[in-house]
Amino acid sequence: MVPHGEGSEEAMVVQDENRKPISSILIVIAMQTEAMPVVNKLQLKEDLDPVFPKGVPWVRYHGIYKDLHINLVRPGKDLTLGVDSVGTISASLVTYAAIQALQPDLIINAGTAGGFKVKGACISDVFLVSDVAFHDRRIPIPVFDLYGVGLRQCFSTPNLLKELNLKSGKLSTGDSLDMSPQDEASIVANDATVKDMEGAAVAYVADLFKVPAIFIKAVTDIVDGDKPTAEEFLQNLAAVTAALDLAVAQVIDFISGKCLSEL
Amino acid sequence: MVPHGEGSEEAMVVQDENRKPISSILIVIAMQTEAMPVVNKLQLKEDLDPVFPKGVPWVRYHGIYKDLHINLVRPGKDLTLGVDSVGTISASLVTYAAIQALQPDLIINAGTAGGFKVKGACISDVFLVSDVAFHDRRIPIPVFDLYGVGLRQCFSTPNLLKELNLKSGKLSTGDSLDMSPQDEASIVANDATVKDMEGAAVAYVADLFKVPAIFIKAVTDIVDGDKPTAEEFLQNLAAVTAALDLAVAQVIDFISGKCLSEL
Repeated sequence: MVPHGEGSEEAMVVQDENRKPISSILIVIAMQTEAMPVVNKLQLKEDLDPVFPKGVPWVRYHGIYKDLHINLVRPGKDLTLGVDSVGTISASLVTYAAIQALQPDLIINAGTAGGFKVKGACISDVFLVSDVAFHDRRIPIPVFDLYGVGLRQCFSTPNLLKELNLKSGKLSTGDSLDMSPQDEASIVANDATVKDMEGAAVAYVADLFKVPAIFIKAVTDIVDGDKPTAEEFLQNLAAVTAALDLAVAQVIDFISGKCLSEL
Repeated sequence: MVPHGEGSEEAMVVQDENRKPISSILIVIAMQTEAMPVVNKLQLKEDLDPVFPKGVPWVRYHGIYKDLHINLVRPGKDLTLGVDSVGTISASLVTYAAIQALQPDLIINAGTAGGFKVKGACISDVFLVSDVAFHDRRIPIPVFDLYGVGLRQCFSTPNLLKELNLKSGKLSTGDSLDMSPQDEASIVANDATVKDMEGAAVAYVADLFKVPAIFIKAVTDIVDGDKPTAEEFLQNLAAVTAALDLAVAQVIDFISGKCLSEL
């Protein structure tokens, strides 16, 4: 039953939206190595008539897969250095521009992540994230401190979680691949099982426009293990990307024909 | 003399651009307290027909001042928490959207900063920044490490620096108000005199679109002093903002009637 009084009309609109079959999905992936298996699996084509402004390195792939309009965007290679434009700034910019241009019904941010074995993460585990927050935005002034942490609940998808038998956990985001003691304290405070470099930024932008967002993160390295993060990350990137690719395809198969409230 | 061969046409276009009087300036300021004195001084009016998409808290003020089209944007108050949307993500988003909508000839990012007394900074000093870099994006993989640091030279304005008798120094940007030992090591490596939460992000976006950008930073707190940063920052914010306001107005007075190559 729709509640009466203030806001009920808006609530009805939201409820109607939630009952329409999902038509358009935006997938945001930071690295080319992570993105290409998904692009190939879903048979997406690279954009020849770019929706993004001239000058940016952002790349869009698109296509129809099981009646869903799929757009996959990545921030592309840094124009000066040639490496993938990882991290929160590029992810937030490309997410913003893609929302404006493509008006998706749902955003999926997929990618690799570090996992904490103390919280039950193993290499190649795929997590469906319950909450996101930042761990490297410390602003010790009341209320600004909460803004810095930027805790957000992800769009709730209990049926998806159950059907695909994915692990559930909280994600903490920061712009460093390594982890300083201050980062670690914030990650513990965030109760995070996985750690990445984009998730909370994508969530921030999705939230600005009230676009539901889900986060699929595959573990390439154990942060609280005994191997150096960068080495373990590079060693496992290709293999774990295959697990990620499979999970994203399964998620999209599950979404096909459903509305938001059925996820 | 314009060099011949590949790229010479582009070089001529750039040179022509540099010789046209500057017509449109975009000022990016993170906090309302920092922005309002400049808005009042330049007699800018708040936008009633927003150029930004529905949903965002970003605020634009605009007007004509000494024949210059001035747009001042700030990321506005966080929609949930009500505090200024400080930091790199909001700054990069509002800079991106403002460049797209307003096509400025020059960007001025003005704001408060922490200063290092060991590098000669004192409370209320106003710095014209020579270089910007990040200090909280540690990615210890070759080339990604440089991407993380994101070092950029600011648009060179030797005449402006001399005429206004501003201090010159390097700026290091991160999303925390405090400074961890890892941040400190990176700030030292960046050879920074001032530390803020937006500059390098604004520079990154400006650079994507090749819009010249300058950075005016006024010192609210001494990072390597004996007072807690948050306390000193809040104590000095209003007074230092007056110094910042004066400097921004002087910079705009100097720019009026000049082309980029005369700055």
